[in-house]
Amino acid sequence: MLTNTTSVEIQFGDCDPAGIVYYPNYFRFFDNASAALLSAAFAMHKRNWLDHYGIAGIPMVDTGARFIRPSSFGDIIEIQSAITELGRSSFGVRHVVRRDGDIMIEANEKRVWVIRGEDGAIRSAPLPHEVRKLLGAA
Amino acid sequence: MLTNTTSVEIQFGDCDPAGIVYYPNYFRFFDNASAALLSAAFAMHKRNWLDHYGIAGIPMVDTGARFIRPSSFGDIIEIQSAITELGRSSFGVRHVVRRDGDIMIEANEKRVWVIRGEDGAIRSAPLPHEVRKLLGAA
Amino acid sequence: MLTNTTSVEIQFGDCDPAGIVYYPNYFRFFDNASAALLSAAFAMHKRNWLDHYGIAGIPMVDTGARFIRPSSFGDIIEIQSAITELGRSSFGVRHVVRRDGDIMIEANEKRVWVIRGEDGAIRSAPLPHEVRKLLGAA
Amino acid sequence: MLTNTTSVEIQFGDCDPAGIVYYPNYFRFFDNASAALLSAAFAMHKRNWLDHYGIAGIPMVDTGARFIRPSSFGDIIEIQSAITELGRSSFGVRHVVRRDGDIMIEANEKRVWVIRGEDGAIRSAPLPHEVRKLLGAA
Repeated sequence: MLTNTTSVEIQFGDCDPAGIVYYPNYFRFFDNASAALLSAAFAMHKRNWLDHYGIAGIPMVDTGARFIRPSSFGDIIEIQSAITELGRSSFGVRHVVRRDGDIMIEANEKRVWVIRGEDGAIRSAPLPHEVRKLLGAA
Repeated sequence: MLTNTTSVEIQFGDCDPAGIVYYPNYFRFFDNASAALLSAAFAMHKRNWLDHYGIAGIPMVDTGARFIRPSSFGDIIEIQSAITELGRSSFGVRHVVRRDGDIMIEANEKRVWVIRGEDGAIRSAPLPHEVRKLLGAA
Repeated sequence: MLTNTTSVEIQFGDCDPAGIVYYPNYFRFFDNASAALLSAAFAMHKRNWLDHYGIAGIPMVDTGARFIRPSSFGDIIEIQSAITELGRSSFGVRHVVRRDGDIMIEANEKRVWVIRGEDGAIRSAPLPHEVRKLLGAA
Repeated sequence: MLTNTTSVEIQFGDCDPAGIVYYPNYFRFFDNASAALLSAAFAMHKRNWLDHYGIAGIPMVDTGARFIRPSSFGDIIEIQSAITELGRSSFGVRHVVRRDGDIMIEANEKRVWVIRGEDGAIRSAPLPHEVRKLLGAA
């Protein structure tokens, strides 16, 4: 299925007193990587596809990450992101993080397609046919 | 095994344009909750037990979270943290997040006990007997 | 004028590889402290006074901070916040950060009272008489 | 004096429930921009110049920012950074943030050149002659 690769340069403030990336920051990188993956699929910026499809977002419902090697200030990591599955109103993403070719992290996500109801609350909605087709592209 | 409960009040800046907690921030909360869990076990602040046991930290090697309900600005969430397993140089933690009694998130962690080698790199070390005993307490 | 004091325990992830608080985090603490100051004045949570007064927020227009001493993981800092001036649609806040009585940081803020226009953009609005009275209380 | 320009694409998670950049994040951008400015001056990555000059960092001692226009998710901002003054053991930086040519933010910083003493604490040190020369270049 669809794949997209982004890269992140680790900044000083991304790291903790142990001198390695403070791991919650990786999820920030992954959120950006998933936005970039869908933007590549939809050929428009997330800002635009949120409007285009009339959704409130793609909140996370399940995620997991295996941290194999730590990264440090100044490292440039490459995040290869791919759609792994398409549900009725959800989809899966897999991120593989590499530095100089070595696998550093493997992460998985399950996200939901949500709209905002008239009561102001967000609720899941079926993936539109077009979205399903664009995300499912080989 | 050992259990500890902390609470977090969701701040404005913890939330994103969808009006719910930006999920990477939960991992920040979980990191603090795991520090508090070990501090309760060791009866000293993390700052002190890092020194006391001569370790560089307890970096994450594997984590997963299932986000069941979103939280918003002003919510007070309760994080119940427990040791779930003890390996040779690693240990497991489980966090259950509740708001007004409802389960919001379930998360799991596997962390490693690491020391800094003479080359400046961090590497895993066996859990000291005392640590094993304190974390394994019923 | 109105004063309120909050405290923050510095967490591991608030600090950088130099072992001191990564300074952008102080502005997060200050944002929370200003919210708490107004919540004390209005006797309701920020979540409620945003609704009560029908505003989109109190965005920052000017801020400055003088960092006198660094803080580290485990420190408990006390933030004393006070309203310093009231403009037509803006107000000033001053934060003094202390640790064990020593002054660590002095910061100033100018914030604007903003509403969301029909075009979706935010714009400044006059401070309501009630707000002016509550913030100006000795 | 020395000038360097970097750009930042505003991410979803950089923004708050009001839909604009949560202002503490700008200081994160400025910290990265100052690192890039010095890296341009020294012709090496910050990771390397910290080692090369044997310093613990360039902590902030005084900063101020005037937020003229808000930025939102998807905006690309350009940060023009310049050295403004050279003290004995400190230096000044000015950042001007533009979006499509419009000035969005003006910020100033005073940072100190610090080394780590034998007691583990950081303390200011005179700017080396070479640093003074490289930062002072027209």
